[in-house]
Amino acid sequence: MSISAAYYTGNRSFSVEAVEVAPPMAGQVQIDVAYCGICGTDLHVYLGHMEARIGNHRVIGHEMSGTIAAVGAGVDNVAVGQPVVVRPLDHCGHCPACQRGHRHICHALKFLGLDTDGAFQQKWTVPAHTLHVLPHGVALRDAALIEPLAVACHDVTLGRVVAGEDVLVIGGGPIGLLIAMVAGHRGAKVTIAEINPHRLEIAKKLGFTSLHPTHTDIVGRINEATGGKGADVIFEVSGSPSGAALMTEVAATRARVVMVAIHASKPPVDLFQFFWREIEMIGARVYEPADYDQAIELIASGAIDTDTLITSVKPLADISTAFKELSSNPQAMKTLIALN
Amino acid sequence: MSISAAYYTGNRSFSVEAVEVAPPMAGQVQIDVAYCGICGTDLHVYLGHMEARIGNHRVIGHEMSGTIAAVGAGVDNVAVGQPVVVRPLDHCGHCPACQRGHRHICHALKFLGLDTDGAFQQKWTVPAHTLHVLPHGVALRDAALIEPLAVACHDVTLGRVVAGEDVLVIGGGPIGLLIAMVAGHRGAKVTIAEINPHRLEIAKKLGFTSLHPTHTDIVGRINEATGGKGADVIFEVSGSPSGAALMTEVAATRARVVMVAIHASKPPVDLFQFFWREIEMIGARVYEPADYDQAIELIASGAIDTDTLITSVKPLADISTAFKELSSNPQAMKTLIALN
Repeated sequence: MSISAAYYTGNRSFSVEAVEVAPPMAGQVQIDVAYCGICGTDLHVYLGHMEARIGNHRVIGHEMSGTIAAVGAGVDNVAVGQPVVVRPLDHCGHCPACQRGHRHICHALKFLGLDTDGAFQQKWTVPAHTLHVLPHGVALRDAALIEPLAVACHDVTLGRVVAGEDVLVIGGGPIGLLIAMVAGHRGAKVTIAEINPHRLEIAKKLGFTSLHPTHTDIVGRINEATGGKGADVIFEVSGSPSGAALMTEVAATRARVVMVAIHASKPPVDLFQFFWREIEMIGARVYEPADYDQAIELIASGAIDTDTLITSVKPLADISTAFKELSSNPQAMKTLIALN
Repeated sequence: MSISAAYYTGNRSFSVEAVEVAPPMAGQVQIDVAYCGICGTDLHVYLGHMEARIGNHRVIGHEMSGTIAAVGAGVDNVAVGQPVVVRPLDHCGHCPACQRGHRHICHALKFLGLDTDGAFQQKWTVPAHTLHVLPHGVALRDAALIEPLAVACHDVTLGRVVAGEDVLVIGGGPIGLLIAMVAGHRGAKVTIAEINPHRLEIAKKLGFTSLHPTHTDIVGRINEATGGKGADVIFEVSGSPSGAALMTEVAATRARVVMVAIHASKPPVDLFQFFWREIEMIGARVYEPADYDQAIELIASGAIDTDTLITSVKPLADISTAFKELSSNPQAMKTLIALN
């Protein structure tokens, strides 16, 4: 069967090609992909930062939703026609991390859509164990947000956010806003720090106290709002040295800092402040199955304002334009590609 | 009543003076100090690093043991003649930290022996709420280790060390060795990294795998010993940028790094590795009452090899010599001053 697939071909370019797909093998399923969002990691690929890992003829994409088109031998957890999302992690099962139950951060983890071909194609074949079936009535457009929302659920769970706590999210891109929404849904008082004025506006529209860190004394504002206590939970999503500085300056005693961002450099960190205020920092990467379950529930219940987050939906033929705009246009939040 | 007291008088010097002491006031007790150990913080004072906080006419010292000599009005938790140690923390009771139960890291914490006069004097008057009564049969010499041992108990408890785990202690001074002993007592497999050859020898004598970090590939050794897993809990006690680098290199997935050291600079920290392996870092400062209870129990039960740790006991008249040796002589571990 012939389908359309978008291959990243290096040097900020995609090639949309007609390819033949084989039926799913034993233990696999084939999905008619409905939508696939463009992730920050996909933008890193597009900008050429991950050539060594990706090569230059790879279908990327993993923030997807779709419908089961065919199942391979031995697959009994899903049936043709069911709406699904994929948790795009394939673990080895025998490394020290897997042995201790840390399968989502397996030492030899394969990330589907980076280490294998991904979802910017009309039919995607994946291991059956990666699937989560969607409940009736969830729009497949909204379901494309489940993967990044599961990241946010993982982050907020590891940060142990409880109702009434003062939360600062440093970085108001899609992941930062989803973290803010999940923390807000748990009853936290959320402030967002973001330097991009368009993203700040979206954060305000979503109802969060939204501050520009170089225009506003964020530490002073949070101390003022909390009687000198500081923030109980800080999500570092900016990946910037200034974010790494702010995270300790604003922290209450025994605050939790959740390290969500990928820091390309090793920034100076105020380890004295960690000692002095007994701050805790928790690294948080991808998600576990329960995070997907939570994300699906949040989308299904309408708790997430998907209309504000999804700023654009484009056809596969426009994938190059979509990546170009997102890597240069600071007004966008989340762009989806419609596959079928 | 006239007693001898050693005043830090600035510029690496002490003056032993005869002073009159008043009886304890309401809520206070007066202790005949038996022994007081020299802490790393005391050495910082001696070397002139803390002049702004200490001034130049201050009795320092807080790692002490003694016997109740007199009690002020309203004191009913201790009686004259009882052997005691002091938990030298005086909190304000109304700051945001105190309000949330973090009294040991009160925003306005007074540390007795730094912010008030301390225990390098024959009689020490302190608030009654700071006392822990010792069980019968504990040698007062050994009891002088209870304060630093309570630090170690706090650190190991916050690190959630359990039997069978692989622990690395970076820095083999008194606190590092006490952490190693407490973790070992809980059934952990402990390795110590230390650059001072004399301290390495003491660590070996105590039965720990003891490695020189520039002579040995510690990451390689721990990966080899753990099947590629890495260390489950890392105690950063060195306060050095190389310690801050090693702590992430050696960490297993979801390892806990306990930040014990006082880092004077803001070293580069590999935040990517925190994200990638979901490492947790926990700042740990001083102790809480339960840590003192544990430390007393460990000393009373003979679980701590005090003879190996206490390398010298000197009279008050020799306090200047003791500080001079400890700040220049790398063979010493813990020096006590005998007060009575």
